[in-house]
Amino acid sequence: MIKVHGYFRSSSAYRLRIALNLKGVKTDFTSVHLRKDGGQQKTPAFRALNPQALVPVVQEGDFRLTQSLAIIEWLDETQPGPKLMPEDPNLRAQVRAFAQVIACDVHPLQNLRVLDYLKANFEADQAALDAWCGRWIRDGLAACEALLEQGPEHPFCFGDHPSLADICLVPQVFSAARFGVDIADLQRINRISSACEALPAFAQAHPKNQPDRED
Amino acid sequence: MIKVHGYFRSSSAYRLRIALNLKGVKTDFTSVHLRKDGGQQKTPAFRALNPQALVPVVQEGDFRLTQSLAIIEWLDETQPGPKLMPEDPNLRAQVRAFAQVIACDVHPLQNLRVLDYLKANFEADQAALDAWCGRWIRDGLAACEALLEQGPEHPFCFGDHPSLADICLVPQVFSAARFGVDIADLQRINRISSACEALPAFAQAHPKNQPDRED
Repeated sequence: MIKVHGYFRSSSAYRLRIALNLKGVKTDFTSVHLRKDGGQQKTPAFRALNPQALVPVVQEGDFRLTQSLAIIEWLDETQPGPKLMPEDPNLRAQVRAFAQVIACDVHPLQNLRVLDYLKANFEADQAALDAWCGRWIRDGLAACEALLEQGPEHPFCFGDHPSLADICLVPQVFSAARFGVDIADLQRINRISSACEALPAFAQAHPKNQPDRED
Repeated sequence: MIKVHGYFRSSSAYRLRIALNLKGVKTDFTSVHLRKDGGQQKTPAFRALNPQALVPVVQEGDFRLTQSLAIIEWLDETQPGPKLMPEDPNLRAQVRAFAQVIACDVHPLQNLRVLDYLKANFEADQAALDAWCGRWIRDGLAACEALLEQGPEHPFCFGDHPSLADICLVPQVFSAARFGVDIADLQRINRISSACEALPAFAQAHPKNQPDRED
């Protein structure tokens, strides 16, 4: 059975949970508390699994894999269940690009280690951190909306079924709400995000439904 | 012919040039000067191509694609020439994960728009910006070195031929030098990076060899 190391609130662990649910893959889950004990991801044992000291990580036998997008494409290529990547190369590329807008240009800027650096080195208070996160989340999701508007409207981002694009979108919309970012005007994103959240695979992956959740 | 919009110093445009050279794909290049005219990437015409206002962008007929990693995998899937992604799903996943360490967790933090934000909102001077970039570049490349050390030693990151991993590594090593980050102790990275730079596909893609270069 595949082992997953994650954390309920991590956006990238949330992506992976959605993908696992959509594929119907059962895993053996270990919670890595990112704030307890000075950060359980910083222990030598965890760094041996992932030198980046980030979640999620998967293990299958001797094989270890980091980075949520790489893990999700690997699952899609090696596990049965509905396909998370389109067959058409052009459409597949657009799904990857959309996912990378979020995974490269939004999410890493709101990562815990980055916010800790801003607090420690730039004396950023909570209002400054919220403004920082808000800027990148708003810019990124507005770009996502514009990318969607370049194509025809579908029930999900790039078709009739959820793909890697939807898997990245929903946790980022959750983060937007968490940081108080107003995205009410991004109509396609709001409609698609609601359609996703109505599916059990997405609902069950929500941070509030995880065994390691905190209120 | 594929149209490419890039800029000599952009790390992600540099990645794409290496990939195009390795594949032997000729393109029609347009330079988008990121600092001239208040940033040529911010014009309405360019934003219509890429709502993120970032390079690179490729166009083939009506098809437009952003995000360097998505573009490179698309080229690999649709163009002839040597394969940039391994056939084995586990190895392919490791190549993607390595590339994403750089493309998600290092490069976006040293992006021009992020540095501009730090200057404008946190009064960051050049020393503070160098320390900021240095932290993420050093952490990221040290993690890359550790990921490489989890496997056997090869001429390139994950085998006998350059892959997407090497394509991401070389521009990031170039950025490390530019920001004065000491990575002399990262032995595999230095050896592989030198092996790559000895290949014409990498050498010809170097920022100093571009038509829009500046000294």
